[in-house]
Amino acid sequence: MSEPVTMEKIVSLCRRRGFVFPSSEIYGGLGSTYDYGHYGVLMKNNIRSLWFDAMVQEREDILALDSAIILNPRVWEASGHVAGFSDPLIDCRTCKLRFRADKLDEAHCGRKPSKHPGEWKECDLTEARQFNLMFQTRVGAVEDASSVAYLRPETAQGIFVNFKNVLQIARRKPPFGIAQVGKSFRNEITPGNFLFRVLEFEQMEMEYFVPPDEADRWFEYWVQARFDWHVKYGLRQEKLRIREHSEEERSHYSSATSDIEYEYPIGWGELEGIANRGDFDLAQHTEASGTKLEFVGEGGERYTPHVIEPAVSIERIFVAMLADAYHEEEVAGRQRTVLRLHPAIAPVKAAILPLIAKDSAMVGHARSLYEELRREHVVEYDDGGAIGRRYRRQDEIGTPFAFTIDEQTLADETVTVRDRDSLAQERLPIGGVRAWLDDSLR
Amino acid sequence: MSEPVTMEKIVSLCRRRGFVFPSSEIYGGLGSTYDYGHYGVLMKNNIRSLWFDAMVQEREDILALDSAIILNPRVWEASGHVAGFSDPLIDCRTCKLRFRADKLDEAHCGRKPSKHPGEWKECDLTEARQFNLMFQTRVGAVEDASSVAYLRPETAQGIFVNFKNVLQIARRKPPFGIAQVGKSFRNEITPGNFLFRVLEFEQMEMEYFVPPDEADRWFEYWVQARFDWHVKYGLRQEKLRIREHSEEERSHYSSATSDIEYEYPIGWGELEGIANRGDFDLAQHTEASGTKLEFVGEGGERYTPHVIEPAVSIERIFVAMLADAYHEEEVAGRQRTVLRLHPAIAPVKAAILPLIAKDSAMVGHARSLYEELRREHVVEYDDGGAIGRRYRRQDEIGTPFAFTIDEQTLADETVTVRDRDSLAQERLPIGGVRAWLDDSLR
Repeated sequence: MSEPVTMEKIVSLCRRRGFVFPSSEIYGGLGSTYDYGHYGVLMKNNIRSLWFDAMVQEREDILALDSAIILNPRVWEASGHVAGFSDPLIDCRTCKLRFRADKLDEAHCGRKPSKHPGEWKECDLTEARQFNLMFQTRVGAVEDASSVAYLRPETAQGIFVNFKNVLQIARRKPPFGIAQVGKSFRNEITPGNFLFRVLEFEQMEMEYFVPPDEADRWFEYWVQARFDWHVKYGLRQEKLRIREHSEEERSHYSSATSDIEYEYPIGWGELEGIANRGDFDLAQHTEASGTKLEFVGEGGERYTPHVIEPAVSIERIFVAMLADAYHEEEVAGRQRTVLRLHPAIAPVKAAILPLIAKDSAMVGHARSLYEELRREHVVEYDDGGAIGRRYRRQDEIGTPFAFTIDEQTLADETVTVRDRDSLAQERLPIGGVRAWLDDSLR
Repeated sequence: MSEPVTMEKIVSLCRRRGFVFPSSEIYGGLGSTYDYGHYGVLMKNNIRSLWFDAMVQEREDILALDSAIILNPRVWEASGHVAGFSDPLIDCRTCKLRFRADKLDEAHCGRKPSKHPGEWKECDLTEARQFNLMFQTRVGAVEDASSVAYLRPETAQGIFVNFKNVLQIARRKPPFGIAQVGKSFRNEITPGNFLFRVLEFEQMEMEYFVPPDEADRWFEYWVQARFDWHVKYGLRQEKLRIREHSEEERSHYSSATSDIEYEYPIGWGELEGIANRGDFDLAQHTEASGTKLEFVGEGGERYTPHVIEPAVSIERIFVAMLADAYHEEEVAGRQRTVLRLHPAIAPVKAAILPLIAKDSAMVGHARSLYEELRREHVVEYDDGGAIGRRYRRQDEIGTPFAFTIDEQTLADETVTVRDRDSLAQERLPIGGVRAWLDDSLR
């Protein structure tokens, strides 16, 4: 009934309705970098705040942190990123391009880009060598080795190096967690697929510190809790699966990792990863810094907690939710595109529409309803064009409810509320709209 | 009556209560970089979201944007930052340090740091030369000139280069604005004074595009609107002033700039700047990109809008609000430190305290009240230690209300509510606490 969703359709809707633009477009763009328009910002704000509410506001055992993007470079030496956070790259001496050694079969020759990928007959390839994925910069005015610094490739290390600070103040004992939201950066040379792999992305990571013998149990707990969160905010269960990493696939620090995967229009891919990082990070930073990062109980027992980490990016959730919500369908002989986003995720919660934009009585009612609702919610007032066109516009940005002020409003002080998904219409007293909307969004 | 507030006292409270830590502290820190703890994150979230509500949610004429931190480097050539965003620096050939030429009188010699600042008798200083404040990095795997990129030193340019994208979609005509919140970076060699000047900071900027002949009027409007916002969220009027920049002081692109200044513990300094940027930026990007960034009306009239820009950082507001709210006072013979933060700014809205932590009936009531309130607000449950000590802890983090569950609660289902500022206590029915708190925070 519904057409299959393609990445092209999502990119096109995002562009057309102002969710996402290619970055620096008037200058030819910058590879795999995007700017978010009005509705994109609103939707990202919702994702971020719902994650934060579930992780921090509604729990007693998790505290928030916001560490800097540029940390002391010794953090990245201790964590292993300076030595080991790299991809194997191959140069071509003929066409002067660089490729990921493990993706050579998919790459195009620079001299003959029209040829099939992986055809390298005319090329003169070097051996593979490791290329670090961290963006490098220099801090301070003096350009020597001591000034080298990195943009963080993950937010997690900012949490580990603050473990002692938080523990001293928080009066908590394991299990407890520290949660952080913020930008991370990776200088990947084969990014792509819209927002699925980008140079800068907004991570939401939580490090949950547990007694070592409870690690397996908490790992299972967080895989399930994060799976449930995605379902709660609208992703269809049949589009989600949990995939355990094989031993070869796991990072060196991890004793277990599971991905929550989503079936994107480009196929199954990681949505969120949950890793058991053991005591690797706290032990590394203890050794490198000389500061003991351990838990000391009231009875004097001491141990290095193990760490369970659910890590996700806003961009991946954003794409998954758009893909999941995107529907094209025929309604009463007309084609419509609708984003069936969960109301809590939808960028705009309700539209307020005077049926006739030139009727000052209708406009008066609509304006005062709009001004009442916007104090609590993101709502839109729209008096432009035929009502059907205004509905379709709201459908495309995923607005769950529309309140229409019409002739009958002037007679009996009721408005029509239209449901985005069912298209059902009912009438509500105008004085009760605010409470109705509050309830519907709760 | 109250002791004067010093920056040291604020730094100390921030550290002691987990608002702000020196970044990467276990590795000796990184100059002028800070990490935010739990209460710092909560307070920053409030500042950000109140700014966003006032700028975007409650207005029809301003849209949100979130552009990338690493833009195409041509953006910074066109904006003038590559050529001109610099400080004059002087090297010392003897002590190998670098100084800002315009701050030489305040600088210390590297060989004789104990001497008075500005005493350079033994030093061999070079002429001043310009040093660019943008952090540089490289994008992609190939290290040639074409890969140089910058961390944005302001969010504004990301707005200007998206002007056409937003205008096409937004169906707006001037006056209208585009608002953005995000990190910016400046490689300053004389940063300092806690959060007042830091390497990375979170800017909140809004570019308001107006017909050229309305620019003066809108400039005045935004100076007043932003001043009022700071007063609304608790800054004392007598600690605020508006200072017009002199002609010499203004940036080359600006025809008028006013700072809203706050009297910090270190003296009067910029809190927020409002600039009339004229058509400088849109004209520069039109010329450099070949894309016309102008407004074309329905009647065919076309012009380049002028831009009024209110620009502020979360860090400056954060410090001003802490300094303004910080009070030490004697209450009933005891010293207390209290943060009289506006309730909307306070990191925690209410504490729920069972008077006797071992009384299971009290705990039962307290837990269920806590679980009810945390669905809507950031609240804390605290059963640790004597009640007076718990109150003083909440005073220090600025929690406006405390609900205490005591013997009388068990008899008549009421709780005590204590007001942080007046210390007045009254009793409320436990079933009405949520509505009372909602009202008090609105």
